[in-house]
Amino acid sequence: MKVVKWPTAQVWGKHLQRPVQDMKTIKKVVKPILKRVERKGDKALRQFAEEFDHAQLKDLRVSEREFSAAEEAVSESLKQAIQLAKENIETFHRAQKTEELVVETMPGVLCKRRSVAIDKVGLYIPGGTAPLFSTVLMLGVPAKLAGCKQIVLCTPSNEAGEVNPVILYTAQLIGIDVVVKVGGAQAIAAMAYGTESVPKVYKIFGPGNQYVTAAKMIVAQQGVAIDMPAGPSEVAVFADETANAEFIASDLLSQAEHGPDSQVVLVTTHEPLLDEVRQALNRQLAELPRQAIARRALENSVAFLVRDTDQAIHLLNDYGAEHLILATDDADDMAEEIVNAGSVFLGHYTPESVGDYASGTNHTLPTNGYAKMYSGVSLDSFVKNITFQRLSEEGIKTLGPTVEVMAEAEQLQAHKNAVTLRLQSL
Amino acid sequence: MKVVKWPTAQVWGKHLQRPVQDMKTIKKVVKPILKRVERKGDKALRQFAEEFDHAQLKDLRVSEREFSAAEEAVSESLKQAIQLAKENIETFHRAQKTEELVVETMPGVLCKRRSVAIDKVGLYIPGGTAPLFSTVLMLGVPAKLAGCKQIVLCTPSNEAGEVNPVILYTAQLIGIDVVVKVGGAQAIAAMAYGTESVPKVYKIFGPGNQYVTAAKMIVAQQGVAIDMPAGPSEVAVFADETANAEFIASDLLSQAEHGPDSQVVLVTTHEPLLDEVRQALNRQLAELPRQAIARRALENSVAFLVRDTDQAIHLLNDYGAEHLILATDDADDMAEEIVNAGSVFLGHYTPESVGDYASGTNHTLPTNGYAKMYSGVSLDSFVKNITFQRLSEEGIKTLGPTVEVMAEAEQLQAHKNAVTLRLQSL
Repeated sequence: MKVVKWPTAQVWGKHLQRPVQDMKTIKKVVKPILKRVERKGDKALRQFAEEFDHAQLKDLRVSEREFSAAEEAVSESLKQAIQLAKENIETFHRAQKTEELVVETMPGVLCKRRSVAIDKVGLYIPGGTAPLFSTVLMLGVPAKLAGCKQIVLCTPSNEAGEVNPVILYTAQLIGIDVVVKVGGAQAIAAMAYGTESVPKVYKIFGPGNQYVTAAKMIVAQQGVAIDMPAGPSEVAVFADETANAEFIASDLLSQAEHGPDSQVVLVTTHEPLLDEVRQALNRQLAELPRQAIARRALENSVAFLVRDTDQAIHLLNDYGAEHLILATDDADDMAEEIVNAGSVFLGHYTPESVGDYASGTNHTLPTNGYAKMYSGVSLDSFVKNITFQRLSEEGIKTLGPTVEVMAEAEQLQAHKNAVTLRLQSL
Repeated sequence: MKVVKWPTAQVWGKHLQRPVQDMKTIKKVVKPILKRVERKGDKALRQFAEEFDHAQLKDLRVSEREFSAAEEAVSESLKQAIQLAKENIETFHRAQKTEELVVETMPGVLCKRRSVAIDKVGLYIPGGTAPLFSTVLMLGVPAKLAGCKQIVLCTPSNEAGEVNPVILYTAQLIGIDVVVKVGGAQAIAAMAYGTESVPKVYKIFGPGNQYVTAAKMIVAQQGVAIDMPAGPSEVAVFADETANAEFIASDLLSQAEHGPDSQVVLVTTHEPLLDEVRQALNRQLAELPRQAIARRALENSVAFLVRDTDQAIHLLNDYGAEHLILATDDADDMAEEIVNAGSVFLGHYTPESVGDYASGTNHTLPTNGYAKMYSGVSLDSFVKNITFQRLSEEGIKTLGPTVEVMAEAEQLQAHKNAVTLRLQSL
């Protein structure tokens, strides 16, 4: 970890710059993949499965039999853990439901707003070494709560054509019955355009590698919504003299083990902590299976020693971390001042990993500074709001003349007529 | 208006297809404009003002003196109308504020969600023949209510370097003090990248021509958020035997006068209405200043005669209109079944123009079928939600083992360690 002491805003700005992702080259690779899926549907998906995943697939959709086998393959203890996480995520996301809003803005002018589920959504779950069944919960639970009618889940198979059993078990537990064995950019294309096996959806959610990210960016320009723009995962930890260096090190490493491009930032007001954390990192790193990855991420990471808590807050709001841990006795007060962050972890007993899995908050969060203008995934991500208005005869009589004056000033005569004709009829 | 009687879903699907917008050529024109603004800042903005708006600008920002002059230029009756509209919009959007959400998902596990204003936002207001001061209200009022700290408004000047006084008056009334004389793609670039006169913002709102739309699409891929993807404006009107043909015709024309590419759809269960509306359209068209535009829009429009209300609902949900007028005595019942629409106008005395200006709902709405997955602009558009969590010692004891099991199953050992170390310390 690079150490920067007593930085000014200009200095920390330089150190906090995220790596610029050049998507141009990747988009060039991805575009023909999207085109082929659009034209050839399932046939293209089968070809890509063979080419990229070395899997020969007959049925692209996961069968009843495979779901049953998955259920048997998952241990009882993992099932219990998933169940508990599911309940917490349900509890927090259910509380996000909004009642219909009904407001009489003036006598006879009734305005309403109602949340309605997005009919068809697609969830992408990466395959690879770490099976992200937790993401199945984080996307599937709110989709179900929102009442989305069609939920499609795409995830790649292994060479034998099998999908990770924990992913399948979790999908079935939530009630997602359309699971398709397709990964990468081709999965995004399948959900955006539709194929014989994959229903076309209106909005696509989920993490992925750069190819998946590029594919999501391309289809987002073609009229399909996406959850949010993506970037490498990141954590910022604020720690003062009340913090525990071993805890801090373990939190930094949780982020660092995600990938070599993970961003890890430590901000402290307590100078001795810099050394203590460094030592703890070395001790803990030695034990990690993914230590090579974590070590590379740490090479790009930075620790700031700042003057006081106010300066820390300033720096942290400038950064806008996806995950922000406030390891201090004053976490609640400090949290009041945080305006840019995805999810915030308060105090000494709230590691990022509890939010990643089971506290109830969502783990699909804005990275790359997007916390400045985007929210993480929530129940809102699976609904849209429709507004309604109704004017009574009294309402049009009171409000009509205002609309006439404004429409005339905007030189939109037909807009005015629509009111005038009604007023004349009364 | 083309008339289609007794269509099946397949037939109406064909007739309801929106024109495909090929943005490729326009993006090619726009990209060098964006680049030049990024590199040369204000200098580029002045050059483009001269080139495109034939205006020689010394100061790009609107001055105090210009604001004062604008205030004097606006008539008392228009000021009163704007004031009333502003109050209704404020009333409806203020009601959209959400309280902090606090949920204990399980003992010792506290999860919260808080809305925070997006710090810096940019509003684009087109110039041209019709000065859209109503859009200043629709974007500026919720931005102010949300508490956005920096609000920039860009709008082009005329050849004399003057901005429409009603736009200036409305901006000042709301409390927007940074108004910059820049239009088109170059305005979007200025807000996305920042120049000497235009602060860089995190999210850009507002309508515009195809160049503005293309510019918004490009900067959205570069890390700036935008309100929503754009398309030509549209209205669908459902009318039954309780409807008034003159009212319907005036509503269709309100939409048609926006532009030759406006989409206008009539759906009725009452055959005689087809003729009655056609006659009313002809009568009203003759009187309209923008009749050439409206006539062209009507050429591409379509009227459906359907079997019953259920079929009408099916068709209307397939279409997902930006504006939907339910001109029937049963509007409230019917509205319950509407799942895809931007804003809905209920009954015989609620023309679209009341929502365009003054009922209180927002008029920045999803077009082009985007109502299937996007909401219109609301207070939510100007905030993002941050989640928080805090585990007590009891909380980590109860939830910790669950996180350990899940992290292990995802092969993320450091995630597990972050919990284990804390459990061991207790």
